[in-house]
Amino acid sequence: MSPKSSWKCLRMDTLNPNIKAMEYAVRGPLVIRAREIEEELQKGVQKSFKEVIHANIGDCHAMGQPPITYIRQVLALVSYPELMRQPYFPDDVKRKARDILDSCCGGSVGSYTDSWGIEIVRKHVAQYIERRDGGIPSNFQDIILTTGATDAIKGIIKLMICDINSKKPGIMIPIPQYPVYSATLTEFDMVRIDYYLNESTGWGLEINELKRAYTEARKTCNPRALVVINPGNPTGQVLSRKNIEEVIKFAYEHDLLLLADEVYQDNVYDENSTFHSFKKVMVEMGEPYCDHELASFMSCSKGYAGECGLRGGYVEVVNMCPEVKLMFMKMLFAVLCPTVFGQIVIDCIVDPPKKSDPSYPLFEQEKTAVLGSLKFRAEMVYDAFNSFEGFSCNRVQGAMYAFPQIKLPSKAIEEAERRKLSPDAFYAFELLENTGVCIVPGSGFGQKSGTFHFRTTILPQPDKLKIMLEIFNKFHKEFMRKYTS
Amino acid sequence: MSPKSSWKCLRMDTLNPNIKAMEYAVRGPLVIRAREIEEELQKGVQKSFKEVIHANIGDCHAMGQPPITYIRQVLALVSYPELMRQPYFPDDVKRKARDILDSCCGGSVGSYTDSWGIEIVRKHVAQYIERRDGGIPSNFQDIILTTGATDAIKGIIKLMICDINSKKPGIMIPIPQYPVYSATLTEFDMVRIDYYLNESTGWGLEINELKRAYTEARKTCNPRALVVINPGNPTGQVLSRKNIEEVIKFAYEHDLLLLADEVYQDNVYDENSTFHSFKKVMVEMGEPYCDHELASFMSCSKGYAGECGLRGGYVEVVNMCPEVKLMFMKMLFAVLCPTVFGQIVIDCIVDPPKKSDPSYPLFEQEKTAVLGSLKFRAEMVYDAFNSFEGFSCNRVQGAMYAFPQIKLPSKAIEEAERRKLSPDAFYAFELLENTGVCIVPGSGFGQKSGTFHFRTTILPQPDKLKIMLEIFNKFHKEFMRKYTS
Repeated sequence: MSPKSSWKCLRMDTLNPNIKAMEYAVRGPLVIRAREIEEELQKGVQKSFKEVIHANIGDCHAMGQPPITYIRQVLALVSYPELMRQPYFPDDVKRKARDILDSCCGGSVGSYTDSWGIEIVRKHVAQYIERRDGGIPSNFQDIILTTGATDAIKGIIKLMICDINSKKPGIMIPIPQYPVYSATLTEFDMVRIDYYLNESTGWGLEINELKRAYTEARKTCNPRALVVINPGNPTGQVLSRKNIEEVIKFAYEHDLLLLADEVYQDNVYDENSTFHSFKKVMVEMGEPYCDHELASFMSCSKGYAGECGLRGGYVEVVNMCPEVKLMFMKMLFAVLCPTVFGQIVIDCIVDPPKKSDPSYPLFEQEKTAVLGSLKFRAEMVYDAFNSFEGFSCNRVQGAMYAFPQIKLPSKAIEEAERRKLSPDAFYAFELLENTGVCIVPGSGFGQKSGTFHFRTTILPQPDKLKIMLEIFNKFHKEFMRKYTS
Repeated sequence: MSPKSSWKCLRMDTLNPNIKAMEYAVRGPLVIRAREIEEELQKGVQKSFKEVIHANIGDCHAMGQPPITYIRQVLALVSYPELMRQPYFPDDVKRKARDILDSCCGGSVGSYTDSWGIEIVRKHVAQYIERRDGGIPSNFQDIILTTGATDAIKGIIKLMICDINSKKPGIMIPIPQYPVYSATLTEFDMVRIDYYLNESTGWGLEINELKRAYTEARKTCNPRALVVINPGNPTGQVLSRKNIEEVIKFAYEHDLLLLADEVYQDNVYDENSTFHSFKKVMVEMGEPYCDHELASFMSCSKGYAGECGLRGGYVEVVNMCPEVKLMFMKMLFAVLCPTVFGQIVIDCIVDPPKKSDPSYPLFEQEKTAVLGSLKFRAEMVYDAFNSFEGFSCNRVQGAMYAFPQIKLPSKAIEEAERRKLSPDAFYAFELLENTGVCIVPGSGFGQKSGTFHFRTTILPQPDKLKIMLEIFNKFHKEFMRKYTS
């Protein structure tokens, strides 16, 4: 037996190479440094700021957004049904909790559910989609509940891991994109087909660019699906109906499964923008487009609920080959079931209190307050960034982020090179170290070569956001002075 | 444009072949048929039984096991902290809820946590492991919280997807095994290296059999890890300390990462059996074994809590290469965080009320009642099955299942062949159609060729279990009469 004190069965050279290659900017090295700085502050290290502001991730409650009372009362009641006996809770909350418990085996949220979710919740989702889409039918058997939208996205993409004629599968994703797509494609060893959004037309999704990306990719891989994020993350644009029609035609003509990431469907702020679901537009376009295959994703982490930690999500699979759908559902067996609490939050969102219900006034008031405040902050961030020297920022029509472009002075770019950082990452690290504001460099989402961006959420509460923008401005002026001379 | 009314972008011939090949017996065709039968009963279809008894899956609450009050009170409080103001809840429940909320960003369980879980929960897990293992240290930085143990198991196995010298990675799994392992290996296109447990020595884990399986597998793949399920699922055996030492030596000598599935560590019923953790035994064996790599899995779905739907789990990674551990943690970024409620249930299990706490007496009473009743049922099932003609059943020393062997008459085997079913599946379908009792055929877990088994849980409550065993006995006698003549 040879001595093996430092020997490892699992080493870097025998580790899954795709895991080695994975990146996830929203939680990357900047966030790790932010956590260290917080620990330093706690230990009393003196800095020019007192706290870290986490503008890096769409984590609503963490940034002070209050939970919706109705949702939390339902969760409390299903957790501990003894509370039903208390006069404390409104009748509609009790009714909702009882309906959910009646749908759980043994009347407990501690039981496994069907692998695709509780049937009554799936039915409520289908009804919600029908209301949203002006009566266009939705079949509850097309609804699959998941542990967050991430699980649904990864699950659908996983179905397409299949080499054809010795070519790898490719998935078209927008650039900039939300990193769950790039990370998933790396993990699954699939080809990432980047199509660029046009920043100068408000992050427009242009068909010529889709064609360019597709044609080029065809040479080396099999393009299988087209991802569209609407409202956009990190870009905040809301697609027009006409644009959606063009995208659907393109996907149809090129045999691409449409993956519509619509998790921000409730987050539209711009008065000239409306959310149109891909499902609705596709059905209204009639033959042959209405028969095209589509998967639309939704989450309880965004919208007005912001219940990120509870991990609720769903996918509606439209026109999927029935045999493939059976395989998808069989695949879900192996993870047993999505978390029941995530399913319940989804249920509260898709089947909220009705006008005659006692919880309705408070629910509406809280929902309106959250969405109204987000709208206010979307405009505040847009105005502020456009007043900064060298910044240009498109309007935040929807979602929860601004993605401004910064013109960095050449001296700053040289300094970044010296430090072996991309220039935008250098800027973000400098901002973090000097102000405690944590943003994500554009390189984590993708950007046109030679341009620099960052993503910030609009989630700090208005007072804090105002302060954040002020210290940001002060930092930026100093940064520019330092590197322009 | 060609007409494509029945054309699909994603068809069976372009679907991920590993997903096509996946099977998951615990939720397979028998369970789908059981659901149909339930719907028929609801519609008033006349049958010789009134309900389906789900003895197919370890779904505790679904079978009438009551939740632990303390856990549910904590969940209610963290859901809706307004309830803190009520005198209703014991002080220790309030304290636990407050501690958890203080550890959540923004004081809300709706916030994302670290991708590896809330730090205070990880610390409580480490303390729990230290208490369990008689003071052997556990580092909270080795604890990673996950959405159920399944997620942890899949995550660790995923790290080993890596061809070396053009050979695929292989993982050694016990036969019979819990199907998460076979399904995961199929999904990841890894080689499944079956080693057989010895039924005649109470499902003994024999080193010669490990050697045989390893030596044979080495010819065609790279064996990377060894899975041990202790207490056993579906087999119910509890490994002796001596046996664990042998397994550790074997894993060390053959450079195999040890995967210890210890989710049933609280479920030991046999008075001659004790649970020994692989970690404890490995450390106590000293050099060189104490430096070997080990991942141990735990869940909140089993034990006495039985909170399957809440999806809480963790893995302790011992002696993992630090760089690999960083890669593992980076990989978890991409699923953001495990569900917060699952983390909280884990916290309640690893940091339960202490003797001086007001919740202690009820907590202990409920825990003891659940475990005592499971012990009673483990014996009841063992005694009953061994009284059936042609049955032999090993003692249910631990876990939640019995896995008896049945000698099927040759006429029954011929009839199964005619119906294109494996003989054990034929038996299970007949049982289901005639009695409503849903079990899982042994072929779903693996069994020696030519032998037939099934797995039943011991989870129906004692009264119902008694009835189940009676109708089972009656069915079996008729089945044997029909096919023996």
